[in-house]
Amino acid sequence: MKQNHSAEILCIGTEILMGNIVNTNAAYIAKELAVLGVNLYHQSVVGDNPVRLRKSLELAFSRADIVITTGGLGPTYDDLSKETIAAYFGRKLVLHQPSYNKLCAYFQRTGREMTENNKKQAFMPENCIVFDNPNGTAPGCCIQQDGKMLMMLPGPPREMKPMFDHWVVPILEKETGTRLFSKNLYFFGIGESSLESRLRELMEQSTNPTIAPYAKTGEVMLRVTANAENKEQAERLMAPVLVEINRQAGEFLYGIDVDDLQTAAVRMLCEKGLHAATAESCTGGLVSKRITDVSGSSEVFECGLCTYSNRMKENLLSVSAQTLEQYGAISAQTAAEMAAGVRRVSGAEIGVSVTGNAGPNASEGKEVGLVYVAVDSDWHKEVIELRLRRTDEDAREYIRWVASSNALNLILKTAKKFQKTLDK
Amino acid sequence: MKQNHSAEILCIGTEILMGNIVNTNAAYIAKELAVLGVNLYHQSVVGDNPVRLRKSLELAFSRADIVITTGGLGPTYDDLSKETIAAYFGRKLVLHQPSYNKLCAYFQRTGREMTENNKKQAFMPENCIVFDNPNGTAPGCCIQQDGKMLMMLPGPPREMKPMFDHWVVPILEKETGTRLFSKNLYFFGIGESSLESRLRELMEQSTNPTIAPYAKTGEVMLRVTANAENKEQAERLMAPVLVEINRQAGEFLYGIDVDDLQTAAVRMLCEKGLHAATAESCTGGLVSKRITDVSGSSEVFECGLCTYSNRMKENLLSVSAQTLEQYGAISAQTAAEMAAGVRRVSGAEIGVSVTGNAGPNASEGKEVGLVYVAVDSDWHKEVIELRLRRTDEDAREYIRWVASSNALNLILKTAKKFQKTLDK
Repeated sequence: MKQNHSAEILCIGTEILMGNIVNTNAAYIAKELAVLGVNLYHQSVVGDNPVRLRKSLELAFSRADIVITTGGLGPTYDDLSKETIAAYFGRKLVLHQPSYNKLCAYFQRTGREMTENNKKQAFMPENCIVFDNPNGTAPGCCIQQDGKMLMMLPGPPREMKPMFDHWVVPILEKETGTRLFSKNLYFFGIGESSLESRLRELMEQSTNPTIAPYAKTGEVMLRVTANAENKEQAERLMAPVLVEINRQAGEFLYGIDVDDLQTAAVRMLCEKGLHAATAESCTGGLVSKRITDVSGSSEVFECGLCTYSNRMKENLLSVSAQTLEQYGAISAQTAAEMAAGVRRVSGAEIGVSVTGNAGPNASEGKEVGLVYVAVDSDWHKEVIELRLRRTDEDAREYIRWVASSNALNLILKTAKKFQKTLDK
Repeated sequence: MKQNHSAEILCIGTEILMGNIVNTNAAYIAKELAVLGVNLYHQSVVGDNPVRLRKSLELAFSRADIVITTGGLGPTYDDLSKETIAAYFGRKLVLHQPSYNKLCAYFQRTGREMTENNKKQAFMPENCIVFDNPNGTAPGCCIQQDGKMLMMLPGPPREMKPMFDHWVVPILEKETGTRLFSKNLYFFGIGESSLESRLRELMEQSTNPTIAPYAKTGEVMLRVTANAENKEQAERLMAPVLVEINRQAGEFLYGIDVDDLQTAAVRMLCEKGLHAATAESCTGGLVSKRITDVSGSSEVFECGLCTYSNRMKENLLSVSAQTLEQYGAISAQTAAEMAAGVRRVSGAEIGVSVTGNAGPNASEGKEVGLVYVAVDSDWHKEVIELRLRRTDEDAREYIRWVASSNALNLILKTAKKFQKTLDK
C-alpha cells in the first residue's frame, strides 16, 4: 500500500486543444482525485500529435507517478494515443478478444460495416487491465510499470465518467489505501461565504470526515467525505458532523444526495401526494422546464402557464385589471394573484408564480433584477421580493435562474409544510 | 511584422486545477488564437504556487514565443501570478497610477474599506502595456522582452473575455500581420457530417476565406474567416464563398451572425410584426424559456402553455377528448390541435406545439424519443415527426433540446413564409 501519490491529467485531442470542446473531463477527474487524496499539480492539453504527446508523457512522468489521459482512442487515423502510449512503455498492441467480440456485436446490431480502422479499437497494450466501455466503442486501460501508472480513458464525457467511477476509482482507492464515502448536502437561500463563516470552526476541525464547499449559481453544496473501511463505519463517522451542520445551517439545507432543487421539489410533491402548477412571467417557462427536467415529474406537475403579456395574465390567470393598473405587473399583488390563478385553473394544490424584470431595460419604471415570487395553497401563502443586482452580460440569465430557484424552493417548502399542518 | 507565432495558454489557479471551476477560458482563447492564425500546441493548468508557476513559464517559453496566462490576479495572499511573472522577466512591480485611481474610486463608490491587499492590484510590472478591466478590479498587462510576449489576464471569464477581445486581439493582429473578419453561419436540420460532405470540395479549396465547422447539439455552425486589410475587402473575399454555401446548403441556413435559433426566430417575428404562442408537453416550457432568453421577446411572445396532463390539454387548449382517446397525447393529431388551440387562446398569429416522449420510459406504448412538433397559422400548417434515438443518461435532455429546436425552427420558417405569401 503506497501513500502520497501524485497524478497529472493529460487531455489529448486537437478539438480540445483548439477550443472546439470545453475541457469538462479535466475538472471532473481533478475533483475526484482531490477526494481520493491524490495530489495533483498539473493539467495539460495536447493535440493528436505523437511527437508532442510522447514529450508530454515524459514530462508528466517526470513530475508525477500517476498519469491519467483522456481522448485519442477513436477509430480514425489521427487517434494515436494508444499507439504512442504503448510505445512509451515499450509494449506492443495486441488484439483483446473480449473487446473485439463486443465491437463485432455492436456493428452487427447497428447494421453498419466494420472497417479495419474500427478493428483498431480492440487492440490494447499487452499486459494491461482493460476497462470495458458500456457507453461507446473505445475501451480504456491501465498500464503499470516501473512504479508508474497510466490510465487511458476515452474523450467523450459520457463514456469517460462512468469508466472513471467504475474502474479508476477502485484502483486508486487500493493504491492510496483510501476508501471514501461522501454525502452531498445542498443549501438554498444562503451564500457560500455566509455558510462558511457559520461552519468555519467545524470545517477546520474536521479531518475525517472532511467538509468542502462548492458554489453553484445561487446555491451552495457541501461535500462531507469520510475515509473508512466500509459504509457503516463511514456513516458513524459522518453522523455527528451532519448533526452539527444541521444545527448550524439546517434551515437552508434542502436535500442530501439529491441532484438539485427541482428534484428535491418533485420528490417532496410525490411523497406528499401533491400537485403543483406554475405561472411565469419573466422566467418565461424556466420553472416549468426545470420541474419537467426531472423524470417522473408528470405525476406531480399539472401545468405551467407562461403569461408574458398583461392580457394573458388577465385572460388565463384572472389577475384583476385593477391590480395590474394600480400596482403593475411587477408587484407582490400581481404575483399573489398569478399564483392563486394558476392554482384555480389547474386544480393543483400548490400554485407558484414569478413576475419581475430580468432586464436588460427598466420596465414599468421598475429596476432590473426586481422579481416577485409567490406561492399559493390552502395552508401556506407567501410572496418573496428579490432584488438581484447584477449588470453584466449574463445578468438576464442569472436573474432568471435565481428567480426560478426561488420558485422551486417555495414549492418544496410549501409541500414540506403540508405534513406539518396535518400533524398539528 | 513577424509571422508563424506559436502560443501557449497557461491557466493559473488552484480552483481550476482542483476542478472546482471548469476551464472555459482555455477554450475561448484557443478558438480565438486559431482564428488569428497563431499556432497552439499546449494548454496547461497550474495552481497558485510560485515555484511550479515559474517552472511552467520556463517550459512554456521553451516551446512558444507567446504565453497567455489567466488567473491569479486577485487581491488575496495566494494570488501570486503578477509577482512570479514580473520576477521571471526580472522586472519590479510599480504602482500604476491610473489603475490605483480607478481602484480608489471603486472602493469609494461601494463604500467598502480598501486594504493593503487591495492596493496590490494596482501594482504592475514596469514597462508593460496595462489592460484596463472595466468588469473587475484586476487589470491585465502585456510584457514584451527578448522576443517573448506574455499576456496576463484575469481569471473570471466575464472579465477575461472582454479584455482579450479589446486588448489582446489587436496586439496579436499586429504581431501576425493578420486582420481577420469572420461570419458565423448557422444551420438547422442537417448534421455536421452531411453538411461537410456537401461542402467538402469548397472547404478544401478555400484558403482565404477559410471555412470551419463547429457542431452544437442538433445544429451546425460554419465560420467563414477572411484575412483582409479592411472590412470591405473581407466582404469581397467572402461573397463568392457565401453564394456557393447558400447554393449547396441554403435551405438549412437559418442565420448569419445571429446568436442562436431563438434569436433568429424572435428577430423574424419582430421583422414581420407577428406574434407567437407555444403549447408544450414533453419539452415542459423549454421552448418558451428559449424564446424568452432573447431580450425583447416580450414584443412578439404572447404566451406559453405547458400542458403536461391530458386534462390541461383539453381544458386550456381544447384538444378534443376524442383525439386524445383515439390517437393518444403523443400523436400528430394532438400536436396539431395543441398548436391550433394555443393560437386561439392567445390570439397570436403563429401557434407552435410539442408533444412526445422524452423518456426514460415508454408512454402510451410510444417509444422514447418519438416527438411531434406542429405549427399552426393562417398561411402555413405543418406537423413534424421526430424519432430521436438515444438511450444514455443525457437522452432526456437531448430529446427535449432537439424537440425545442425544431419548434423554434418552425416558428422561424412560418414567420419567414408570411412575407412570401403576401408577395404572391
